[in-house]
Amino acid sequence: MELFAVEGLPEVRPGDDVGELIAERVDLRPDDVVCVSHSIVSKAEGRQADLDDFDPGPQAEHIADRIGALAGEAKDPRFAQAVIDESDELLTEEPLMLAVTHFGHISVNAGIDRSNVPDADLLLLPEDPSASAEGIHETLDAPVVVTDTSGRPFRQGQRGVALGWAGVPAARDWRGESDRDGRELGVTVEAVVDELAAAANLLTGEGDDGLPVVVVRGFDFGDHEPHDGLFRSPEGDYVRDALREWEYDKQRLRAGADDADDADGGDTT
Amino acid sequence: MELFAVEGLPEVRPGDDVGELIAERVDLRPDDVVCVSHSIVSKAEGRQADLDDFDPGPQAEHIADRIGALAGEAKDPRFAQAVIDESDELLTEEPLMLAVTHFGHISVNAGIDRSNVPDADLLLLPEDPSASAEGIHETLDAPVVVTDTSGRPFRQGQRGVALGWAGVPAARDWRGESDRDGRELGVTVEAVVDELAAAANLLTGEGDDGLPVVVVRGFDFGDHEPHDGLFRSPEGDYVRDALREWEYDKQRLRAGADDADDADGGDTT
Repeated sequence: MELFAVEGLPEVRPGDDVGELIAERVDLRPDDVVCVSHSIVSKAEGRQADLDDFDPGPQAEHIADRIGALAGEAKDPRFAQAVIDESDELLTEEPLMLAVTHFGHISVNAGIDRSNVPDADLLLLPEDPSASAEGIHETLDAPVVVTDTSGRPFRQGQRGVALGWAGVPAARDWRGESDRDGRELGVTVEAVVDELAAAANLLTGEGDDGLPVVVVRGFDFGDHEPHDGLFRSPEGDYVRDALREWEYDKQRLRAGADDADDADGGDTT
Repeated sequence: MELFAVEGLPEVRPGDDVGELIAERVDLRPDDVVCVSHSIVSKAEGRQADLDDFDPGPQAEHIADRIGALAGEAKDPRFAQAVIDESDELLTEEPLMLAVTHFGHISVNAGIDRSNVPDADLLLLPEDPSASAEGIHETLDAPVVVTDTSGRPFRQGQRGVALGWAGVPAARDWRGESDRDGRELGVTVEAVVDELAAAANLLTGEGDDGLPVVVVRGFDFGDHEPHDGLFRSPEGDYVRDALREWEYDKQRLRAGADDADDADGGDTT
């Protein structure tokens, strides 16, 4: 299995055809998997935004105040509003806005990027990364994974993850297959699109020599059941439940403290 | 960058020298990263165990009862005791035993494997995977990552992760570097050992044709600050805090319900 970055891609602008830009620069084989950083997909899809596009409501003002107090520096409520608009739900509001995006990905700040955006303040994630991947897949006639880098619970650092995919299943399912000893393997659904994204990120980097497209040549999916879920559904996701309850308890405690403060205030005026 | 599996490794037995077994089968270059599945490391280190080695205490009996009731089938309290023994702490006891291993890795069932273990019931993780990696690194004179596959919050499926590493830093730190537009990059510590493990897992598989060693050739760490933390420390890990509180609330509720049941029982006898 070989990985190489596609060289010579221009700065991508709204309306550009990412599939065409890639096709012009690399001779693909049908089994190549093309890993495309969401940043150029978002740029082509016009997902640049300015902070002034977001009119902060009370929740955004509240979050910016809280995170700002924790960080010891003022935070922009317009940014908090952008995260709220890009999310179905905030699992936590502080110390980080842990957001469930409209397409099911859970990420700090809904994956909104504040660097690498010429002529704009922000770069939002694609609205539907699997649809984006499908469009590029149709042009290239090769499997496509749209990637991002993202932090995760329990482990430090970011790693590449898949946001969307087309032409390759999200996972391969080893259940029902046997180990060397003939024992049936346990729960072994392997999220190959995340592993492809992680592998690609070893080459792409984050800096100003950014190489947003990596070709994985020679990946063999093998004779396994395909599986197309990647984002856990809310039902039965107990880490999500725990975070919701933790956030709820925190807000309830704070509301109680605020009420007490108000009562105190009433006493002294 | 190229990845290939090392062919022809024998079934590894206690006392085998994993570094020697690899060195005999591949000509390594100094910048090759050798990703070694923990399974052969554990086997060489004699980490096979039988369920009868574990004498279940009250916590293990309780956990097996609870998980068994949820699963609708009896669970072995000896297995629960093995997980407890291999852990500093259980963040949750049900529906899954989410364990913090003695070396800081957080994994369901403390990563104990019930398949792929000839002549034993269980395979425990290495006691100190970075020390294991260091030993193999000294033999091979090339960077080594000891890997496992593991599930994760929010996303379905397993992916390769690093348990230990030597000769390569856990992460590279892009902070202070600039994007194309000259803006400073945000929090961008990239956990390269996890990405290397994920890439290797695309080749290794889980089944009876298991290939436990993958060489990554041509990975360029680049000119970045190295960073050697991979497992979050408990301080400030708010997902861990939330899970602890969730588990605590659940147990307290249940204790309350049990007291009520006892009281009812007292009334009717």
